[in-house]
Amino acid sequence: MSGLPPEDRLVELLESRYRARRRDVLLGIGDDAAIIQASGPIAVSNDVLVEGVDFLPDTDPRRLGMKALAVNLSDLAAMGAAPLHALLALGMPPRTGLDWFEAFHDGFRSSAGEYGVAVIGGDLSSSPTLFASVTVLGKPAAAGFLTRSGAKAGDELWVSGTLGASAAGLRLLLEGYRLVGDEGVRGPSGRLLRSAHTPEIRRLIRHQLSPRPMVELGTTLAERSLATAAIDISDGLSRDLHRLCRASGTGAVVERDALPADSAIPELSKLLGMDPVATALYGGEDYGLLFSVPRQKSASVTRLAGRFALRRIGALTAGPAVLLAARGRTEPIPDAGFDHFPKETA
Amino acid sequence: MSGLPPEDRLVELLESRYRARRRDVLLGIGDDAAIIQASGPIAVSNDVLVEGVDFLPDTDPRRLGMKALAVNLSDLAAMGAAPLHALLALGMPPRTGLDWFEAFHDGFRSSAGEYGVAVIGGDLSSSPTLFASVTVLGKPAAAGFLTRSGAKAGDELWVSGTLGASAAGLRLLLEGYRLVGDEGVRGPSGRLLRSAHTPEIRRLIRHQLSPRPMVELGTTLAERSLATAAIDISDGLSRDLHRLCRASGTGAVVERDALPADSAIPELSKLLGMDPVATALYGGEDYGLLFSVPRQKSASVTRLAGRFALRRIGALTAGPAVLLAARGRTEPIPDAGFDHFPKETA
Repeated sequence: MSGLPPEDRLVELLESRYRARRRDVLLGIGDDAAIIQASGPIAVSNDVLVEGVDFLPDTDPRRLGMKALAVNLSDLAAMGAAPLHALLALGMPPRTGLDWFEAFHDGFRSSAGEYGVAVIGGDLSSSPTLFASVTVLGKPAAAGFLTRSGAKAGDELWVSGTLGASAAGLRLLLEGYRLVGDEGVRGPSGRLLRSAHTPEIRRLIRHQLSPRPMVELGTTLAERSLATAAIDISDGLSRDLHRLCRASGTGAVVERDALPADSAIPELSKLLGMDPVATALYGGEDYGLLFSVPRQKSASVTRLAGRFALRRIGALTAGPAVLLAARGRTEPIPDAGFDHFPKETA
Repeated sequence: MSGLPPEDRLVELLESRYRARRRDVLLGIGDDAAIIQASGPIAVSNDVLVEGVDFLPDTDPRRLGMKALAVNLSDLAAMGAAPLHALLALGMPPRTGLDWFEAFHDGFRSSAGEYGVAVIGGDLSSSPTLFASVTVLGKPAAAGFLTRSGAKAGDELWVSGTLGASAAGLRLLLEGYRLVGDEGVRGPSGRLLRSAHTPEIRRLIRHQLSPRPMVELGTTLAERSLATAAIDISDGLSRDLHRLCRASGTGAVVERDALPADSAIPELSKLLGMDPVATALYGGEDYGLLFSVPRQKSASVTRLAGRFALRRIGALTAGPAVLLAARGRTEPIPDAGFDHFPKETA
């Protein structure tokens, strides 16, 4: 028994909710497949969010819907591709009600609307575990797409946004802090917070729940051929930098003092108990872009720094070593961060 | 703790396993998105298989991998689209081992190879429940794509293959029958069957575990403009016929005696206890195509009947009623079959 209407009724709801008005959608939701009109290269990516793994069981469905699309658009951003279309498969446990379903889709649609994405299909399934599987299609910049593998020794290493805010937000959620309304935060005791830190606590939790994909940065870097390689920071700067270096056949040196560790992490050190540098290196889900820039393009990227909160944090090197430099010394940055299949010994 | 190697190691395994040799794959597995070269219409579909919902917990991973792709290709077939690319997201519980993972991908790759599909990306996630989410891209026939909505009153109604075999195979699996090796079947007692019926029992179980998508039939119908509408039979003839009729704004009359109920169902009636007509109408997962044919194309379709096991089973009508006709009488066919979100009262 299910709290939802029959599958075909749900599909009708989605058909009217996502009726495509874009010319490149020849056939949207409601048939065995969608049909789009394409010309030239298309970027395709697929990412799943699983309850208890990627989000907490009581996550606000509207924010979850927004995030499910956002993390996929972040993958397109890393390729320098502009979002076009999305498909969404939802696996839903019997307890799922129509309210949850509609709120999730409100969020998904609002994200889709913001980034001009046409939602063209997907699947609905019952499942013991709640999950969302999203597929996105995008149009790479005319100048070419970005990859992880184009970095060269000597390139500068840049990052967008701050680091660690999402990990700090997750810590707060795990400790029982929750967003309330448009401005409030409820503490673990259930009481509304009324401290000077409330706005910062709220910002960290929002960063975790509602990450913003760097779509415009990604397409700008690709269109102007400013980056030789790019990746989005989903599993932590360290792990994603190792991935970029492995793919490019380079090493890297990261300047510790250049890391844009989120300012709230030291500020809230009593509450969070998190080391700012370690959180910046290993905390996941910031969804900024990490990218390499040839030196002769450095001035052009510097001009974009204010608009996209960019920071040069180091350089690519020839060796395979990925190092952290501070006060004239270097130490290896381990390839650590989020892994879906961790070993007990890791 | 997981029985699998780290995520990045698994991605490397998949990269080498699915290294694309097709020219239209500009970038395959291993980056934030894949890039394909496209021109003209592209069909996109997404289908998930969830453990305990769409397959039994002890399902042979190799067959499961084949089926996960096959059911998606069946959706493309219903659109008259030839398969091009696939993305695969796997959610895997901690007990999953590398053996399971490799066997699943052996199956997925073998299906991909058979239908010329390039596997270009996806996602790996831990998950309390095992699931596979597959996205496929395909090329519609130059003459146009098929939809559910083009049928006209007066068109003939055709179906491919037999009906009910998959439901009968599921019944056998639920009762404890299992395939053994290349020819055997083990009964619920654990003993190998040695009856004259063994090959038929084996065929029914295989039909459930390893459905064959009607890719060539779909593209042939579309290329030659023989069908006005088509749908694949995933949730039972009845439910999928209702969907086709709703989308087309027609009704239908199905001739009971023309239904190609699988011959093993009456033959094994003692063992199965299933009514052949009811199983043909409401049993799911046969993955044949159900399609409408204008009368003037009937002779052309008849010429394909032997090659694709086609049968004319009735006609589309103006009214909204979907009827079963036998011995000069008609009765409504209820819109029943598989639903992911059934009501207790349904």
